Amino acid sequence: MSFRYQVHFTRDLFAPGNTLLRDVAAEPDKGPKKMLLIVDRGVYRHHPRVLVQAEEYARRHRDAVTLAARPVVVEGGETAKNDPTWIEIVHKAVEKAGLCRHSYVAAVGGGAVIDMAGFAAATAHRGIRLIRIPTTVLAQADAAIGVKNGVNAFGKKNFIGTFAPPWAVLNDFNFLSTLSSRDWIAGVAEAVKVALVKDADFFGFIERHAGPLSQRDSCAMRHVIYRCAALHLEHIAGGGDPFELGCSRPLDFGHWSAHKLEQLTGYRLNHGEAVAIGIALDTIYAYREGLLPEKDFNRILDVLRNLGFSLYVPELDASVLGGLQEFREHLGGRLTIMLLSGIGKPMEVHKVDEKGVLKCIEWLKNREDKNATFIEQKSRMPQIQGVKGEAVVKLRRVFDNAVDGI
Amino acid sequence: MSFRYQVHFTRDLFAPGNTLLRDVAAEPDKGPKKMLLIVDRGVYRHHPRVLVQAEEYARRHRDAVTLAARPVVVEGGETAKNDPTWIEIVHKAVEKAGLCRHSYVAAVGGGAVIDMAGFAAATAHRGIRLIRIPTTVLAQADAAIGVKNGVNAFGKKNFIGTFAPPWAVLNDFNFLSTLSSRDWIAGVAEAVKVALVKDADFFGFIERHAGPLSQRDSCAMRHVIYRCAALHLEHIAGGGDPFELGCSRPLDFGHWSAHKLEQLTGYRLNHGEAVAIGIALDTIYAYREGLLPEKDFNRILDVLRNLGFSLYVPELDASVLGGLQEFREHLGGRLTIMLLSGIGKPMEVHKVDEKGVLKCIEWLKNREDKNATFIEQKSRMPQIQGVKGEAVVKLRRVFDNAVDGI
Repeated sequence: MSFRYQVHFTRDLFAPGNTLLRDVAAEPDKGPKKMLLIVDRGVYRHHPRVLVQAEEYARRHRDAVTLAARPVVVEGGETAKNDPTWIEIVHKAVEKAGLCRHSYVAAVGGGAVIDMAGFAAATAHRGIRLIRIPTTVLAQADAAIGVKNGVNAFGKKNFIGTFAPPWAVLNDFNFLSTLSSRDWIAGVAEAVKVALVKDADFFGFIERHAGPLSQRDSCAMRHVIYRCAALHLEHIAGGGDPFELGCSRPLDFGHWSAHKLEQLTGYRLNHGEAVAIGIALDTIYAYREGLLPEKDFNRILDVLRNLGFSLYVPELDASVLGGLQEFREHLGGRLTIMLLSGIGKPMEVHKVDEKGVLKCIEWLKNREDKNATFIEQKSRMPQIQGVKGEAVVKLRRVFDNAVDGI
Repeated sequence: MSFRYQVHFTRDLFAPGNTLLRDVAAEPDKGPKKMLLIVDRGVYRHHPRVLVQAEEYARRHRDAVTLAARPVVVEGGETAKNDPTWIEIVHKAVEKAGLCRHSYVAAVGGGAVIDMAGFAAATAHRGIRLIRIPTTVLAQADAAIGVKNGVNAFGKKNFIGTFAPPWAVLNDFNFLSTLSSRDWIAGVAEAVKVALVKDADFFGFIERHAGPLSQRDSCAMRHVIYRCAALHLEHIAGGGDPFELGCSRPLDFGHWSAHKLEQLTGYRLNHGEAVAIGIALDTIYAYREGLLPEKDFNRILDVLRNLGFSLYVPELDASVLGGLQEFREHLGGRLTIMLLSGIGKPMEVHKVDEKGVLKCIEWLKNREDKNATFIEQKSRMPQIQGVKGEAVVKLRRVFDNAVDGI
């Protein structure tokens, strides 16, 4: 069995003349396809016209797609994944709207809403087609690209979920303009991660544009999202284990502590912020263990700081070590942690020296004050304006056409 | 991607010397594998030693398998699928026992418990290996063989579920001895169904042995289960659409009304009893529409009656027509109903004449009294004792070896 899904980049997805959504949903000779929209409350707050626009869009393209019910607005952020009521609300809406396996659930929102709505769609009638419309940097670059969904339970991230390839992923860059500064930069942590395990050149790009990225340079950000999404897709298509039957999960570099930190901070840290700390922790550990050269160690920590990430929180203490066991249990089999022997050079280890990790935490704690000063200095530095290069030009062409698959 | 799972037939699965379970679970060089047993309350009631036996079994084979927690006893029958608390209980047990994706959930029970526990296993950590140990005729012959799981919601059968191939299916014939007469015969309805759409010879076997089957001839029953399971497996492996992406589901012959009838009777009818009525209804309909010859029509209704099925309940009225729409919604796309143009000769139709169906219901209602007499007469007829033939001999060899794959 193989599977196939489309990933598109666009702007103004619900503009009447943008045919992307209708083209993705329409089936020849099948009449209008039923669709149920699930919308993140955060998106609705910042784009209050989105529901009306979507309804107008469906009216305009009523030969191809029909909204089977009024859009359902759900809580955004981890609340969507922590409270099982939201799954029930989506299931109920699917049932009431009379959706079938050939209908669509379209989830518009951040990674958490897409994960939750995706789980609800995957389990209603044993799987309704899911169109993901991610609206944050993190979701567009990472969370919405893959074949997974999930919700949290028993204080554990993604304890409940399935593997279910989406029907399509539609990235609308316009949604990014209203993100908070925290949400804007948080997603870049996943880009740093994928660059570190997959693509040293891409790491160089992020390194050179850390300033602009932290200053909301949207052109640099579009390139980061595009490249990050492409690397994720390549991994899924070429990695050989999309449904994670083995023990290895290279894209979860930095995540064993990140998932635990999110939970320990009661989700005060968002996923990207936790991943930045997780990357820092495993970077320091690899350096201390003599696996990673000092130069690379410095470059990685510098990039994280220059992007504006804080690399320490008071909850970062011995309790985070519980994340190792939870990580192993979630994936199964032998403990397999990805570390780095260089930028773009991942390596697997099956044993982690817990005392060594505690020393790394101590080091991060001691550096905390210095980091604050460091970030302040950086923000006074002149910024590199604009981004050039082939990839960005290619991306522009994509926007002109409004539609493109990766 | 392909998938593979084993189906075995045995007796006394938890007998210390029966190595089937350990062989299925063990992995070379991986040490003892964690297993969590979920046991149907009905099984526990009739086999109160089963929990102790399982624990002794695990102690005896502790180099290969270890019970990660005490077995969890859950409610049997549709209650297991109607009350979402049971899923939560299984999830919680998985979490507490620290199972990982390479561990096992082993579900011992009827089709409902296996469906529910299978859903819980498929969604914990995005999928823990599931070993199905079905204990009823229906579950061994049909429900536990396939790649589906599910629970009921909003009054709809299997509204929530996933497609998830099991790790293995272990059929222990000994469990059948304590079934009630209703549960004993109910499962044969699914065998009649699969014979009608797949195998006219097998239908002939059931026809010839309807008396012995209804009189608890276990040798005839073992052949029915074995052949029914084999036909289901062949369909899944060779049918081309194991995950039902299309609109057609030939093995759901007779099921559009059966699922609705179960719900309309508040699950007073069990699944097999409802399927028997569903088969009768679609058989009469096909005959009335001129699709099915009278001779076949008579043979099918005779078999159902000779097995002891009642083919009418007061809830069988116009409300059952709602099942057509629910059936279409569940599968998706165009309405596709399987009818027969002969025994072993299925044909798809995409339109059902609702008035015609109501006439068939009327006909079944009018025949109700006569049927009662008919069954009474049959039960006074001399019974054919014993079963001979190559297939049964082959099956006996299987039992001698305790283990065999299909």
